Amino acid sequence: MSDSKHAGPAGRTLTHLDAEGQVSMVDVTAKSVVVRSAKASGAIFLETETIRLIQADRVAKGNVLAVARLAGIMAAKKTGELIPLAHPLPLTYAEIEFEFPDSLDRIRIVSLVRTASRTGVEMEALTAVAVAALTVYDMCKSKDKTMRVSEIQLVAKEKVPPA
Amino acid sequence: MSDSKHAGPAGRTLTHLDAEGQVSMVDVTAKSVVVRSAKASGAIFLETETIRLIQADRVAKGNVLAVARLAGIMAAKKTGELIPLAHPLPLTYAEIEFEFPDSLDRIRIVSLVRTASRTGVEMEALTAVAVAALTVYDMCKSKDKTMRVSEIQLVAKEKVPPA
Amino acid sequence: MSDSKHAGPAGRTLTHLDAEGQVSMVDVTAKSVVVRSAKASGAIFLETETIRLIQADRVAKGNVLAVARLAGIMAAKKTGELIPLAHPLPLTYAEIEFEFPDSLDRIRIVSLVRTASRTGVEMEALTAVAVAALTVYDMCKSKDKTMRVSEIQLVAKEKVPPA
Amino acid sequence: MSDSKHAGPAGRTLTHLDAEGQVSMVDVTAKSVVVRSAKASGAIFLETETIRLIQADRVAKGNVLAVARLAGIMAAKKTGELIPLAHPLPLTYAEIEFEFPDSLDRIRIVSLVRTASRTGVEMEALTAVAVAALTVYDMCKSKDKTMRVSEIQLVAKEKVPPA
Amino acid sequence: MSDSKHAGPAGRTLTHLDAEGQVSMVDVTAKSVVVRSAKASGAIFLETETIRLIQADRVAKGNVLAVARLAGIMAAKKTGELIPLAHPLPLTYAEIEFEFPDSLDRIRIVSLVRTASRTGVEMEALTAVAVAALTVYDMCKSKDKTMRVSEIQLVAKEKVPPA
Amino acid sequence: MSDSKHAGPAGRTLTHLDAEGQVSMVDVTAKSVVVRSAKASGAIFLETETIRLIQADRVAKGNVLAVARLAGIMAAKKTGELIPLAHPLPLTYAEIEFEFPDSLDRIRIVSLVRTASRTGVEMEALTAVAVAALTVYDMCKSKDKTMRVSEIQLVAKEKVPPA
Repeated sequence: MSDSKHAGPAGRTLTHLDAEGQVSMVDVTAKSVVVRSAKASGAIFLETETIRLIQADRVAKGNVLAVARLAGIMAAKKTGELIPLAHPLPLTYAEIEFEFPDSLDRIRIVSLVRTASRTGVEMEALTAVAVAALTVYDMCKSKDKTMRVSEIQLVAKEKVPPA
Repeated sequence: MSDSKHAGPAGRTLTHLDAEGQVSMVDVTAKSVVVRSAKASGAIFLETETIRLIQADRVAKGNVLAVARLAGIMAAKKTGELIPLAHPLPLTYAEIEFEFPDSLDRIRIVSLVRTASRTGVEMEALTAVAVAALTVYDMCKSKDKTMRVSEIQLVAKEKVPPA
Repeated sequence: MSDSKHAGPAGRTLTHLDAEGQVSMVDVTAKSVVVRSAKASGAIFLETETIRLIQADRVAKGNVLAVARLAGIMAAKKTGELIPLAHPLPLTYAEIEFEFPDSLDRIRIVSLVRTASRTGVEMEALTAVAVAALTVYDMCKSKDKTMRVSEIQLVAKEKVPPA
Repeated sequence: MSDSKHAGPAGRTLTHLDAEGQVSMVDVTAKSVVVRSAKASGAIFLETETIRLIQADRVAKGNVLAVARLAGIMAAKKTGELIPLAHPLPLTYAEIEFEFPDSLDRIRIVSLVRTASRTGVEMEALTAVAVAALTVYDMCKSKDKTMRVSEIQLVAKEKVPPA
Repeated sequence: MSDSKHAGPAGRTLTHLDAEGQVSMVDVTAKSVVVRSAKASGAIFLETETIRLIQADRVAKGNVLAVARLAGIMAAKKTGELIPLAHPLPLTYAEIEFEFPDSLDRIRIVSLVRTASRTGVEMEALTAVAVAALTVYDMCKSKDKTMRVSEIQLVAKEKVPPA
Repeated sequence: MSDSKHAGPAGRTLTHLDAEGQVSMVDVTAKSVVVRSAKASGAIFLETETIRLIQADRVAKGNVLAVARLAGIMAAKKTGELIPLAHPLPLTYAEIEFEFPDSLDRIRIVSLVRTASRTGVEMEALTAVAVAALTVYDMCKSKDKTMRVSEIQLVAKEKVPPA
């Protein structure tokens, strides 16, 4: 695909868009289908009282966390729509865990996502954490005005060639 | 991935609940890619006069059923977005058929969906039937106040290992 | 907008078919913004043992029903994408309730949806019930092979002019 | 799956119409997974002054074209939702190029899409061009009242069996 | 909201570019809710034989055009997702018409969209035409290798203040 | 709508939980349509070298930030799909700004969203920041293995009654 008619700054010529620094998806066509997983984590900081309320809920019915867990899993499936250059991937597994550190100032959120595909699910795992955290925020925002979502990062990723 | 602060009852058998009773997608990573199909059916009950009107349409232009057929096929493709723990699947075929039993009190809707994937398309076939039925409802609701959608169920599912 | 090359039968009454029998959305431009609500119901028939298992879950953690409730609410918001000729509406409220009749052969699902808009939310209420029921189905399908979704119908709809 | 109450003309060749003339997806279940690519092109006609303004933008910051490029790539990923009978496909690559013919009356848009799948990406490449063009239109419509989108067509498609 | 580290050229007139040349949505918050409509048109060029086949279909069942009509209406509702800076709008009406000029070399597609909102539906009308045309393309592509989509443009737009 | 078989704790204050502790959307039907805005911020921490690379890009072409800006704006429009109990809202404005603190260890992201609606856009502003940050992450992840997304929080929200 060439374009002799581009004019641009410094040295643009008959090249592909990416050669000129223009965005395109990364081409993963030639990569092989292998099992890939990614684990990400993040935290939502809340008032201790809000955490206790969620925990009480959780013990009784688990609703706030149940909604956030679902939101995270469904967001993992939507990653290819949200992140413009992400590849749409057929996820084979997604889960969200919540942890309550003794500091009682945050809920830690951990996601695990798997696929058997040509590229990895790092963005899916991160997106799941972010949306789960935002959902906790949404459900508590009428009560707690101090919340913030932080520390969203990759924990691990793995590639397992087929046996 | 464990969370020692969760505690759950033993002996659960529902597959979407993990060891601690929390929901996650079923992990189908290790399952093999095989051709899978599912056939589902359902019915929308209507006044006989509404059925005759739809049939007349159908003979002349097929519009009500054409819209419902499309809606069902498109909904099958959206199943992974609608059913929270369903896996997103690359469908390879989807069709919707309408049948008019002699009782003239209902339209029977039958879907057939196929994929070559790690898990089956039962939910896709059921979703196609449900949305096709709701679409017939939508198109006739100004005229017929008696409609109800019923009998949505699986007819058959099949797994065909690659030759 | 006319197209003299179309010819259609006279005397049609289905509102989604225009003068020539071709489908289009119903024009609600001139209708006024009023509060509109709709309540719909449906049922999923299951084995008594499955119902007891869900109920035990529900008491302990509420997970199966929590997922189905969320799925129904989220589907109500997606109705304009699923039903081809439905108008996209800004919902102001959606809820899903589950009831367990003494017969122990089904879970009854009731939705209530509200908007302040130019047209009603009947399809939103019905779609919420259908998707909530399909989600219960999805979460129990590995265990119960007898399920069917039935009796999806409108319970009531209402229009409240602004005070 | 047959429905003896349908009757249709013989000798049809359009592939999306089944034996009775009713629409369904083309069944690609039995086709093999191979690398498939498609290249499409189109043009948006604008006033020369608008083109110069976009080009100046492009040199300075590239914004109009950057937005259109993203819109085209994201639309390629949404093709299965937009085109009713298109198969949902896991794209492995998508890019959009813009060319400025010397006539200075249009911007030419070229897309290239790849997948490794059971069917091709012709519709994805065409959809990418159409939405990229409409996005240029959207961003310039307050200034230029003469725009039109034209010449959207396939340039080439290819099927590469796995090595 | 300012960012002194951005620098941009003065005198820009493209409305989606803010003071520093960065893209954002046009702010329509202060505009009033009025009835707005837009009419757009386009054409798909096909072999005469393909047109005759579609027409025969249309007379008999209308399927190809019925699918394209639906696709166009549904795409109008999705415009806010496809065009990055378009505002999401609650459409109150959408229709698609097909015309067959005597030249027998094309099908002309005309859309009409209405809303009661703070901004117009020009992009919705254009998107409806584009996707309807691409859908005709999709349904005929196995037979006709000469198709192209052209002449997509605005026909009229109107703003009707409330009575 | 009552369900005597549900029992829940008294004295709950989380607004998304109804009288029996089950989740539902907050009912905003009776609230009035006023202009509402929300501003949120967040940060992505990166290696200084990555920031310099982005800045160089930004000065020359702005691509990484242009993609992230678009992704944030489009995500704001999708908030009602991502956050399960969020109301779908017709946004009238959305923008994303990037700031480069002198510490050179992060990019600060600020969003501003407006609507004229029955409820506020706090979640939309937060979602825009989160997705813009994840998009920067996606575009730099092949180079920088240290990134994390943090400090996502509300900066301000406002309600402006109509004049």
